[in-house]
Amino acid sequence: MTQEVKRVESAIEQAQQANSCAIVSSGDPGIYAMAGLVFETCKLKNIAIASPVACGKNRAAEAPLVVEVVPGIPALSAGASLLGAPLTHDFATISLSDLLTPWQVIEQRIEAAARADFVVVLYNPKSKKRTWQLERAQKILLKYRDAQTPVGIVVSAMRDNQQVSIVALKDLQREYVDMQTTVFVGSSASSRYLDFMVTPRGYAKKYDIGGKG
Amino acid sequence: MTQEVKRVESAIEQAQQANSCAIVSSGDPGIYAMAGLVFETCKLKNIAIASPVACGKNRAAEAPLVVEVVPGIPALSAGASLLGAPLTHDFATISLSDLLTPWQVIEQRIEAAARADFVVVLYNPKSKKRTWQLERAQKILLKYRDAQTPVGIVVSAMRDNQQVSIVALKDLQREYVDMQTTVFVGSSASSRYLDFMVTPRGYAKKYDIGGKG
Repeated sequence: MTQEVKRVESAIEQAQQANSCAIVSSGDPGIYAMAGLVFETCKLKNIAIASPVACGKNRAAEAPLVVEVVPGIPALSAGASLLGAPLTHDFATISLSDLLTPWQVIEQRIEAAARADFVVVLYNPKSKKRTWQLERAQKILLKYRDAQTPVGIVVSAMRDNQQVSIVALKDLQREYVDMQTTVFVGSSASSRYLDFMVTPRGYAKKYDIGGKG
Repeated sequence: MTQEVKRVESAIEQAQQANSCAIVSSGDPGIYAMAGLVFETCKLKNIAIASPVACGKNRAAEAPLVVEVVPGIPALSAGASLLGAPLTHDFATISLSDLLTPWQVIEQRIEAAARADFVVVLYNPKSKKRTWQLERAQKILLKYRDAQTPVGIVVSAMRDNQQVSIVALKDLQREYVDMQTTVFVGSSASSRYLDFMVTPRGYAKKYDIGGKG
């Protein structure tokens, strides 16, 4: 964390010296990642920044610092694509890291998302030091979801040591999970079909598929 | 909708005739998009498919049909990047389209996400025929969020007619919103800084920024 703050501060200093400077982040820099810290730091240090696009105005020319966020493919998209299509309907994305967020807030969110039948995407499920949070999340989810609910586990999506598996919610603890893992807990509508985890697009059936073709 | 079903059925027929076939979808095909329909259709028609990556097995060679989902940049990432960094913390993604989902289910999700202080990303907020859902969502959100909560509105992200604006939650109805729009409602921690909408990474302050450095 300290290192991330240093990287951002150093990038801002570079930019203030009229150098173009990019901060590179894996996945999407805007989802649980570095983009937020850039703006937080500028705000706290009272540094004037402008967006090249926001609010229909192009003030880039007159602003001392222009900040542009370039989106990437977030872990939730990369992971979902490897599992099949678990995110074709509403989902809630929750980080299990309680380093910067009280566990009580996290637990309330898991409870709310479970009760309202969202597909739940868990970021930062486990680290060497944080080992009990995922099991606690599983227990809350099991209050509202069937024990057989499919759970997709994607370790290091699109990297050399990628691992993809689909298990029943009750068996989640058997699987290998680390900091580079994203966990997808199905809604009541999600199911497994062969190698894939799928959430249908709706609850109603207003269109006809599977008929005579 | 009917056309989407036809596109998928036609692609599957092509693939069954041993032709490689791609279905192209804007944004990320796995988020409220075509990937789900491919799997739903295969399941309902009992078509055997295999993943080139899932479950650690490479069964591509022996499977009659191999389905690979290639992830893209979802509207939530593209929109967030144009707004600043609204998704640096937990968020819930909800479609306001009640074509395939009963409105009651959607409303329960908005309520749950609002109460648990998620940033809320609204897909399909409005169409020519669906005009009242966004106002209803706003009313529910106002029960739990301050009237001044920043809301980011991104119309046609990364396209020619792109529009980006940030308004207070109470003023949401004044803004232009259509089917190509994604709406980002801040959590209690989100704020506006100059051109940008930002959600900080945590509630606690365990690291020091904005000091003398």
